[in-house]
Amino acid sequence: MTTTTLDAARVTTQANVYFDGKCVSHAVTLADGTKKSVGVVLPSQLTFNTGAPEIMECVAGSCEYKLAGTSEWKQSRPGDRFSIPANSSFDIRVTEPYHYICHFG
Amino acid sequence: MTTTTLDAARVTTQANVYFDGKCVSHAVTLADGTKKSVGVVLPSQLTFNTGAPEIMECVAGSCEYKLAGTSEWKQSRPGDRFSIPANSSFDIRVTEPYHYICHFG
Repeated sequence: MTTTTLDAARVTTQANVYFDGKCVSHAVTLADGTKKSVGVVLPSQLTFNTGAPEIMECVAGSCEYKLAGTSEWKQSRPGDRFSIPANSSFDIRVTEPYHYICHFG
Repeated sequence: MTTTTLDAARVTTQANVYFDGKCVSHAVTLADGTKKSVGVVLPSQLTFNTGAPEIMECVAGSCEYKLAGTSEWKQSRPGDRFSIPANSSFDIRVTEPYHYICHFG
Protein backbone atom coordinates (compact mmCIF):
# COMPACT_ATOMS: atom_id res chain seq x y z
CA MET A 1 0.00 0.00 0.00
CA THR A 2 1.36 3.40 -0.89
CA THR A 3 1.28 6.46 1.33
CA THR A 4 -0.61 9.03 -0.74
CA THR A 5 -0.61 11.89 1.79
CA LEU A 6 1.26 13.06 4.88
CA ASP A 7 -1.11 14.74 7.32
CA ALA A 8 -0.84 17.49 9.94
CA ALA A 9 2.55 18.35 8.55
CA ARG A 10 4.69 21.47 8.38
CA VAL A 11 6.01 21.86 4.85
CA THR A 12 9.12 23.89 4.09
CA THR A 13 8.19 25.98 1.08
CA GLN A 14 11.69 26.19 -0.44
CA ALA A 15 12.59 23.01 -2.30
CA ASN A 16 15.87 21.13 -2.15
CA VAL A 17 17.27 20.92 -5.68
CA TYR A 18 19.96 18.28 -6.25
CA PHE A 19 21.93 17.29 -9.35
CA ASP A 20 20.77 20.26 -11.43
CA GLY A 21 17.16 19.40 -10.70
CA LYS A 22 17.30 15.67 -11.39
CA CYS A 23 16.10 15.34 -7.79
CA VAL A 24 13.73 17.84 -6.15
CA SER A 25 12.35 17.43 -2.64
CA HIS A 26 10.43 19.35 0.00
CA ALA A 27 11.08 18.88 3.72
CA VAL A 28 8.13 17.91 5.90
CA THR A 29 7.88 17.82 9.70
CA LEU A 30 5.01 15.85 11.23
CA ALA A 31 3.08 16.99 14.32
CA ASP A 32 5.23 14.71 16.53
CA GLY A 33 8.44 16.28 15.22
CA THR A 34 9.35 13.44 12.86
CA LYS A 35 11.19 14.75 9.81
CA LYS A 36 10.65 13.38 6.32
CA SER A 37 10.96 14.62 2.79
CA VAL A 38 8.79 14.11 -0.26
CA GLY A 39 10.54 14.19 -3.59
CA VAL A 40 10.95 12.98 -7.12
CA VAL A 41 13.94 11.70 -9.08
CA LEU A 42 13.73 12.31 -12.83
CA PRO A 43 15.24 9.94 -15.42
CA SER A 44 18.96 9.72 -14.65
CA GLN A 45 21.53 7.65 -12.80
CA LEU A 46 22.74 9.25 -9.58
CA THR A 47 24.62 8.48 -6.37
CA PHE A 48 23.16 9.69 -3.08
CA ASN A 49 25.06 9.89 0.17
CA THR A 50 23.40 9.48 3.56
CA GLY A 51 24.16 11.17 6.86
CA ALA A 52 21.42 9.75 9.04
CA PRO A 53 19.97 6.35 8.12
CA GLU A 54 17.19 6.64 5.56
CA ILE A 55 14.24 4.59 4.42
CA MET A 56 13.13 5.32 0.88
CA GLU A 57 9.47 4.58 0.20
CA CYS A 58 8.26 4.57 -3.40
CA VAL A 59 4.87 6.26 -3.83
CA ALA A 60 4.70 6.34 -7.65
CA GLY A 61 6.88 5.40 -10.59
CA SER A 62 9.83 3.12 -9.94
CA CYS A 63 13.60 2.98 -9.64
CA GLU A 64 16.45 0.55 -9.48
CA TYR A 65 18.94 0.98 -6.65
CA LYS A 66 22.22 -0.52 -5.55
CA LEU A 67 23.47 -0.06 -2.01
CA ALA A 68 27.15 0.72 -1.33
CA GLY A 69 29.14 -2.48 -0.99
CA THR A 70 26.67 -4.55 -3.00
CA SER A 71 26.70 -5.43 -6.67
CA GLU A 72 23.04 -6.19 -7.26
CA TRP A 73 20.56 -3.73 -8.70
CA LYS A 74 17.14 -4.15 -7.10
CA GLN A 75 13.83 -2.67 -8.18
CA SER A 76 11.56 -0.49 -6.05
CA ARG A 77 7.92 0.04 -7.00
CA PRO A 78 4.97 1.80 -5.35
CA GLY A 79 4.62 0.59 -1.75
CA ASP A 80 8.18 -0.81 -1.63
CA ARG A 81 10.76 0.49 0.82
CA PHE A 82 14.49 0.11 1.10
CA SER A 83 16.85 1.12 3.89
CA ILE A 84 20.23 2.82 3.68
CA PRO A 85 22.58 2.87 6.68
CA ALA A 86 24.02 6.07 8.13
CA ASN A 87 27.08 7.54 6.41
CA SER A 88 26.69 5.33 3.38
CA SER A 89 25.52 5.75 -0.18
CA PHE A 90 23.41 4.20 -2.89
CA ASP A 91 23.20 4.38 -6.65
CA ILE A 92 19.82 4.93 -8.22
CA ARG A 93 18.74 4.67 -11.83
CA VAL A 94 15.41 5.95 -13.00
CA THR A 95 13.67 5.69 -16.36
CA GLU A 96 10.28 7.08 -15.30
CA PRO A 97 9.90 9.68 -12.53
CA TYR A 98 10.41 7.98 -9.15
CA HIS A 99 8.26 9.62 -6.47
CA TYR A 100 9.32 8.92 -2.91
CA ILE A 101 9.01 9.66 0.77
CA CYS A 102 12.34 9.70 2.58
CA HIS A 103 11.99 8.66 6.22
CA PHE A 104 14.96 9.63 8.38
CA GLY A 105 16.49 8.02 11.45
CA MET B 1 8.33 38.77 4.15
CA THR B 2 8.54 35.30 2.73
CA THR B 3 6.43 32.36 3.81
CA THR B 4 8.97 29.74 4.88
CA THR B 5 6.55 27.01 6.00
CA LEU B 6 2.94 25.94 5.54
CA ASP B 7 1.58 24.45 8.75
CA ALA B 8 -1.02 21.82 9.65
CA ALA B 9 -1.11 20.80 6.04
CA ARG B 10 -1.90 17.61 4.18
CA VAL B 11 0.82 17.00 1.60
CA THR B 12 0.24 14.84 -1.47
CA THR B 13 3.32 12.66 -1.68
CA GLN B 14 3.33 12.26 -5.47
CA ALA B 15 4.79 15.30 -7.18
CA ASN B 16 3.43 17.08 -10.24
CA VAL B 17 6.12 17.08 -12.92
CA TYR B 18 5.67 19.61 -15.74
CA PHE B 19 7.80 20.40 -18.80
CA ASP B 20 10.08 17.37 -18.41
CA GLY B 21 10.84 18.37 -14.84
CA LYS B 22 11.54 22.05 -15.41
CA CYS B 23 8.70 22.58 -12.92
CA VAL B 24 8.05 20.25 -9.99
CA SER B 25 5.38 20.86 -7.37
CA HIS B 26 3.64 19.14 -4.49
CA ALA B 27 -0.02 19.76 -3.65
CA VAL B 28 -0.84 20.93 -0.14
CA THR B 29 -4.23 21.22 1.57
CA LEU B 30 -4.46 23.35 4.71
CA ALA B 31 -6.57 22.41 7.73
CA ASP B 32 -9.37 24.73 6.54
CA GLY B 33 -9.48 23.00 3.15
CA THR B 34 -7.57 25.68 1.25
CA LYS B 35 -5.54 24.18 -1.58
CA LYS B 36 -2.07 25.39 -2.52
CA SER B 37 1.01 23.97 -4.12
CA VAL B 38 4.69 24.41 -3.33
CA GLY B 39 7.07 24.11 -6.22
CA VAL B 40 10.18 25.14 -8.04
CA VAL B 41 10.86 26.23 -11.61
CA LEU B 42 14.37 25.44 -12.86
CA PRO B 43 16.23 27.63 -15.36
CA SER B 44 14.06 27.77 -18.49
CA GLN B 45 11.43 29.83 -20.24
CA LEU B 46 7.95 28.35 -20.03
CA THR B 47 4.29 29.22 -20.55
CA PHE B 48 1.79 28.22 -17.86
CA ASN B 49 -1.96 28.11 -18.32
CA THR B 50 -4.39 28.73 -15.51
CA GLY B 51 -7.77 27.18 -14.82
CA ALA B 52 -8.67 28.81 -11.52
CA PRO B 53 -7.16 32.21 -10.72
CA GLU B 54 -3.71 31.86 -9.15
CA ILE B 55 -1.45 33.96 -6.97
CA MET B 56 2.23 33.08 -7.31
CA GLU B 57 4.31 33.92 -4.23
CA CYS B 58 8.09 33.80 -4.53
CA VAL B 59 9.75 32.20 -1.49
CA ALA B 60 13.33 31.94 -2.82
CA GLY B 61 15.22 32.67 -6.03
CA SER B 62 13.54 34.88 -8.59
CA CYS B 63 11.79 34.92 -11.95
CA GLU B 64 10.60 37.25 -14.63
CA TYR B 65 7.02 36.87 -15.77
CA LYS B 66 4.76 38.32 -18.45
CA LEU B 67 0.99 38.01 -18.20
CA ALA B 68 -1.10 37.15 -21.25
CA GLY B 69 -2.09 40.30 -23.12
CA THR B 70 0.80 42.35 -21.73
CA SER B 71 4.20 43.04 -23.25
CA GLU B 72 6.19 43.89 -20.13
CA TRP B 73 8.42 41.42 -18.29
CA LYS B 74 8.29 42.02 -14.54
CA GLN B 75 10.54 40.61 -11.88
CA SER B 76 9.39 38.62 -8.84
CA ARG B 77 11.67 38.15 -5.85
CA PRO B 78 11.25 36.57 -2.40
CA GLY B 79 8.14 37.96 -0.74
CA ASP B 80 6.67 39.25 -4.02
CA ARG B 81 3.37 37.98 -5.38
CA PHE B 82 1.66 38.26 -8.71
CA SER B 83 -1.87 37.32 -9.76
CA ILE B 84 -3.05 35.50 -12.85
CA PRO B 85 -6.73 35.53 -13.85
CA ALA B 86 -8.74 32.34 -14.46
CA ASN B 87 -8.41 30.70 -17.89
CA SER B 88 -5.39 32.78 -18.81
CA SER B 89 -1.66 32.21 -19.09
CA PHE B 90 1.70 33.71 -18.28
CA ASP B 91 5.24 33.34 -19.55
CA ILE B 92 7.98 32.83 -17.02
CA ARG B 93 11.73 32.96 -17.46
CA VAL B 94 14.07 31.73 -14.78
CA THR B 95 17.85 31.88 -14.51
CA GLU B 96 18.15 30.65 -10.91
CA PRO B 97 15.66 28.20 -9.35
CA TYR B 98 12.43 30.05 -8.59
CA HIS B 99 10.74 28.60 -5.49
CA TYR B 100 7.09 29.43 -5.10
CA ILE B 101 3.80 28.89 -3.36
CA CYS B 102 0.83 28.83 -5.71
CA HIS B 103 -2.36 30.06 -4.02
CA PHE B 104 -5.54 29.09 -5.84
CA GLY B 105 -8.93 30.76 -6.11
